[in-house]
Amino acid sequence: MRRIRYAASALTVCAFLWGGGLYGATPPKKVIVDQDARGPASTDMQSILLFLQSPDVEVLGITLVSGDQWVKEQTQRTLRAVEIAGRTDVPVVPGAEHPFINSKELSEAWEEQFGTLGFKGAWTARTYHAPDVIPELKEGMPTTKPLNEHAANFIIRMVHKYPNEVTIWAGGPLTNVALALRLDPEVATLAKELVLMGAGFNSDKGGIHRINGRREFNWWFDPEAVRIAMSAPWKKITITPVDISVKTRLSPEIKAEIAKAQTPLADYHTKFAGGSYMWDEISALAFMDPTIITKEQELFVNIDINHGASYGQTIFVEKDMDARPGETPVTRKMASWWRVATVQWDLDTAKFYKMYIDLMSRPPRPRQPSK
Amino acid sequence: MRRIRYAASALTVCAFLWGGGLYGATPPKKVIVDQDARGPASTDMQSILLFLQSPDVEVLGITLVSGDQWVKEQTQRTLRAVEIAGRTDVPVVPGAEHPFINSKELSEAWEEQFGTLGFKGAWTARTYHAPDVIPELKEGMPTTKPLNEHAANFIIRMVHKYPNEVTIWAGGPLTNVALALRLDPEVATLAKELVLMGAGFNSDKGGIHRINGRREFNWWFDPEAVRIAMSAPWKKITITPVDISVKTRLSPEIKAEIAKAQTPLADYHTKFAGGSYMWDEISALAFMDPTIITKEQELFVNIDINHGASYGQTIFVEKDMDARPGETPVTRKMASWWRVATVQWDLDTAKFYKMYIDLMSRPPRPRQPSK
Amino acid sequence: MRRIRYAASALTVCAFLWGGGLYGATPPKKVIVDQDARGPASTDMQSILLFLQSPDVEVLGITLVSGDQWVKEQTQRTLRAVEIAGRTDVPVVPGAEHPFINSKELSEAWEEQFGTLGFKGAWTARTYHAPDVIPELKEGMPTTKPLNEHAANFIIRMVHKYPNEVTIWAGGPLTNVALALRLDPEVATLAKELVLMGAGFNSDKGGIHRINGRREFNWWFDPEAVRIAMSAPWKKITITPVDISVKTRLSPEIKAEIAKAQTPLADYHTKFAGGSYMWDEISALAFMDPTIITKEQELFVNIDINHGASYGQTIFVEKDMDARPGETPVTRKMASWWRVATVQWDLDTAKFYKMYIDLMSRPPRPRQPSK
Amino acid sequence: MRRIRYAASALTVCAFLWGGGLYGATPPKKVIVDQDARGPASTDMQSILLFLQSPDVEVLGITLVSGDQWVKEQTQRTLRAVEIAGRTDVPVVPGAEHPFINSKELSEAWEEQFGTLGFKGAWTARTYHAPDVIPELKEGMPTTKPLNEHAANFIIRMVHKYPNEVTIWAGGPLTNVALALRLDPEVATLAKELVLMGAGFNSDKGGIHRINGRREFNWWFDPEAVRIAMSAPWKKITITPVDISVKTRLSPEIKAEIAKAQTPLADYHTKFAGGSYMWDEISALAFMDPTIITKEQELFVNIDINHGASYGQTIFVEKDMDARPGETPVTRKMASWWRVATVQWDLDTAKFYKMYIDLMSRPPRPRQPSK
Repeated sequence: MRRIRYAASALTVCAFLWGGGLYGATPPKKVIVDQDARGPASTDMQSILLFLQSPDVEVLGITLVSGDQWVKEQTQRTLRAVEIAGRTDVPVVPGAEHPFINSKELSEAWEEQFGTLGFKGAWTARTYHAPDVIPELKEGMPTTKPLNEHAANFIIRMVHKYPNEVTIWAGGPLTNVALALRLDPEVATLAKELVLMGAGFNSDKGGIHRINGRREFNWWFDPEAVRIAMSAPWKKITITPVDISVKTRLSPEIKAEIAKAQTPLADYHTKFAGGSYMWDEISALAFMDPTIITKEQELFVNIDINHGASYGQTIFVEKDMDARPGETPVTRKMASWWRVATVQWDLDTAKFYKMYIDLMSRPPRPRQPSK
Repeated sequence: MRRIRYAASALTVCAFLWGGGLYGATPPKKVIVDQDARGPASTDMQSILLFLQSPDVEVLGITLVSGDQWVKEQTQRTLRAVEIAGRTDVPVVPGAEHPFINSKELSEAWEEQFGTLGFKGAWTARTYHAPDVIPELKEGMPTTKPLNEHAANFIIRMVHKYPNEVTIWAGGPLTNVALALRLDPEVATLAKELVLMGAGFNSDKGGIHRINGRREFNWWFDPEAVRIAMSAPWKKITITPVDISVKTRLSPEIKAEIAKAQTPLADYHTKFAGGSYMWDEISALAFMDPTIITKEQELFVNIDINHGASYGQTIFVEKDMDARPGETPVTRKMASWWRVATVQWDLDTAKFYKMYIDLMSRPPRPRQPSK
Repeated sequence: MRRIRYAASALTVCAFLWGGGLYGATPPKKVIVDQDARGPASTDMQSILLFLQSPDVEVLGITLVSGDQWVKEQTQRTLRAVEIAGRTDVPVVPGAEHPFINSKELSEAWEEQFGTLGFKGAWTARTYHAPDVIPELKEGMPTTKPLNEHAANFIIRMVHKYPNEVTIWAGGPLTNVALALRLDPEVATLAKELVLMGAGFNSDKGGIHRINGRREFNWWFDPEAVRIAMSAPWKKITITPVDISVKTRLSPEIKAEIAKAQTPLADYHTKFAGGSYMWDEISALAFMDPTIITKEQELFVNIDINHGASYGQTIFVEKDMDARPGETPVTRKMASWWRVATVQWDLDTAKFYKMYIDLMSRPPRPRQPSK
Repeated sequence: MRRIRYAASALTVCAFLWGGGLYGATPPKKVIVDQDARGPASTDMQSILLFLQSPDVEVLGITLVSGDQWVKEQTQRTLRAVEIAGRTDVPVVPGAEHPFINSKELSEAWEEQFGTLGFKGAWTARTYHAPDVIPELKEGMPTTKPLNEHAANFIIRMVHKYPNEVTIWAGGPLTNVALALRLDPEVATLAKELVLMGAGFNSDKGGIHRINGRREFNWWFDPEAVRIAMSAPWKKITITPVDISVKTRLSPEIKAEIAKAQTPLADYHTKFAGGSYMWDEISALAFMDPTIITKEQELFVNIDINHGASYGQTIFVEKDMDARPGETPVTRKMASWWRVATVQWDLDTAKFYKMYIDLMSRPPRPRQPSK
């Protein structure tokens, strides 16, 4: 009985939220959710749950990568979250344990030169444990198991299985994505698009050197992976940077609203979700409903991979050259390894919060038939 | 007669503008004005004129450095502007023709990798001429001569002559300042302070890659000089970055107001001044009256000197570490070559424009007795 | 008849060459031969054939990586060579098509700054074709097929199947090895050792900038892969650098000697082998019989991955600090990502050439039972 | 009486040593000796003394720069050596105290990443004192005074006074030379040539990381100065690298031979000279008599100024491109900031030692008339 009730309320909210894809009017979008899934109930995990809850999305798998936490710990926490969401039909696929070049030791040498960073994910000194250690999970230990396949190989298998249909959505460091690209040069052209939370530009909040938005955690953690991913011939790249993240906040009011749903997922959210910027949730929901974004821009994108002061900093370059008044803008000539990305600068926060509350308040989606 | 009239009107404006230093109540501040003085009537030249016009400032000399234009051309244009201002008592001192490492050729190689820059000063392709060429000056050719001493040697001589009294105010690339520091390690400790227009941070306007405020012209032109200057043991460093520059504009209204003065200087301003951001004028006037600045912050400051994507980009790092609520902030531990600077973020534009109009409308200051 | 004859002659040569492992006295060493196998009959291919011919070695597979040629072309050429050697029991496993970061385009930008390179493998302008193109093979087209598994995954599978038994021998860029390391952090500790041809130091011959031995092709092609591979916790690393390669030469005399064997392999060698330094053959034979090396040294090893003039250059650092006469040498304290490698500096060329002639003159080894 | 005797013996030796310039047959070559003059009786000081002793050279001045020791200490030690040589007519001119960018602190950060260096000149930990400290001089305190002009200004003044006549000979870091070049862009074209000891290439001895000859002290101490000096339009650059230095040694036999002269200079040499490679002496004597060099090569020359593993390492690039047999070599196309230098690779050591002994055994040269 209870289940019916919250399905109904969700329906009401949804009806005016979405036009298109709702309830199967169009086939759901196939997505691989690639995350550094800190748990419980971080921005990472919430974005996973939004994907699992959305009727417009078919999650082919959740691939994990070290970042906010080590991948082994994340795997357990994600399996648990997926169980709580009632979606154990979705494979959880562990991926890279270490970035390509960057490391705890290298970051410490950098900090001696350029100043201590405020947050370093799995490498943060005050919460550090070894990659193999799984701390006790306050959200409960999972009973399900991860897929016995590397995230990168999983990505490759999926883009070949569903050519031109798969969105790779990345909410963490891009190590898995870059590994897939280097294992198989066809990944970028076979995928539908790459959508990600990462980068930062002219924000004085949200960076791991605080006032420096270009020192964004996901991209800083594995700069070479970003360089590989940002140089690949994707059909489309969409970026949710720090600059837009910091315009949001998971407030007590939102939490209270979701708590009303009294589902296991809502309870998990109520117990464990903090009050942070909604980094990854914006990127997830904008993928489902692009109309929450009110300002975006096409920009050349890359990252500094020189091992100096700016290692791991975002580079955005204007797509068009300065045009004097009356002249037609000319696309900037860039070296062949540059790509243009759509970068989101602003959003309709009211619409965004509503959509977030709705999806988080829904009953569990039915398990999908296995593929 | 005319002279008396505009002297009177200036007096009126001044009376309520300034409290302290006005008309010799306190001894005027000794300043070396170091500039890449593009002429005629650029932001560079206006800032020089403001110094020459201010009764609160004693300009020991105007030292010139390549940047917006080549130093040989600037020397002629500055001599002319100084003649127009009636201040040929102030020595004009040519300095460095080339930055330490950066060059037209190196910048072109950089652009092939990272995209064409919108403005490169003396190296800008569409206006390029050789360093030795002096184009015809539409403002008229000067009859006076520059000092036969290098700007760097002049700076050294002055800080020794007036220990702890000399402000080095820099509105261009820091090549002269860095040369002085390397010729004489006492320059920084003998000077009173370093005040400069340069750097940029989280501004999407004003950079030479436009949306990238950290690619600020003065600092980009000679990054190694900035590194040298920013690592020296000055008593105080004050920085006017792009972020505050772009909040101002030399409007037709301001120009019209100044035109009323009908002095040679006002006429020069009317004829030649454009409508740009008031980059250097803010720095000059804030030096004379710090109360025009409404927001500033102490930050560690440096520049990226690695020859990659971020060569020449500003680095600002928060002085204090992240403090959790209730904790006392702790000053960040930085490598020995970092210095703290006061960085100006916002200003009282009304007050600033008034002060600008007043100084530019004044009659020429009397020539000072030679030193 | 013929077969018996050349088996006998080989036996004669061998009998005094080897003591230990000969003819199964000890179990053959398991090795994965990772190569950028330019064909036909290059140093790359000869080293593969030496492994296939040696009774002391069990080749688990030949993994291929772009370098001297593109991996797709190499795959065909290697299959053909393996057929000629009569060893189609050994799997041929294609691997990475592109290095992590380096690329044809990036190398061209580097060359504009620092001078044209003499050889760039698959990227060499005068012989360039696209990665997918397979030119006609003058040695004949193969009828066998490669394994349907990525080289990196193959490496991972083998080290898990035979823990502590597998030598990874690498004669090309280290992209496959680095991919394996990043896909599975246990690869280095599960493998027996890493043996490779690559790097260079104080040689004025053999580099791709000629007089600069530190610009060695294999390492230059994928510097980041080298950094990953050289930072992994291998039990042992052995390096055959340019400095020793240039002391050898595949002479007409050696070719004539091998021609006498009149096997298909010898015929292939006679037809196609050139007169180059015996880069990879030294590394292969020294692995089989370490006594051909007459001088070696333990050194800290790494590579420059900063994207400047020295991108991709070898770094060797002495293991011990300068000790003054009478003092005991102290091991240099290095950052955690440095490893010590055994670097070969000199060899017994007579012994080396004999061993080369013997193995190349042997009859095909019997096919091994499939694993 | 005594004086006559050693003049005679010197004459005997000289007579068959030199043909040309001896005893004023041609006017002596004007040279500025720029040194990091560690005293007493180091390779630095010996090279200065050779210049002072040679009848073929007119030393315009000895300009000093921090390197092996701090410039303030060097100034005292050089004044004393000049007094001992009886050449107080030659001005001693102190120059730069610090390199452009490199510093003790920066070098320590580098060492943490890439390994401790064996020697760091004035920054060497075990012998460190502050720049202002003058330790007691065992060779005696000088009574003469240095010139009151900066070395860089002195260089500028001299090349203007004697256009196309002055050789700048540099035996230390190039800070003074680079300062002169940046203060006055005409220095390179007004000078006759630049001759220097510095750089290193394929030597496994003599570097400050020992087996790495490209980490040569003079160039490592101030890499940006080298870049400036090596990019200037000199008529000719001649380089004496580590590779040739390590072929020499100041032996007890040589010392004993010189001791016989019993001049104050010979006594100083006997008491204080050690047994090191004859770094700077080669460069000095090859300048006086180029026939001691038996092998040299024209090479493009530069230095790595990226702040990574290779910061401060020599770069030599072959002047001509690889030519296939029968083809005419083509000069490599290089970016505009590259220059060609003549690099000395080998010498006639017997001739070199003889020349050294002869000059060091001579009586003091008569003081020259002041200029």
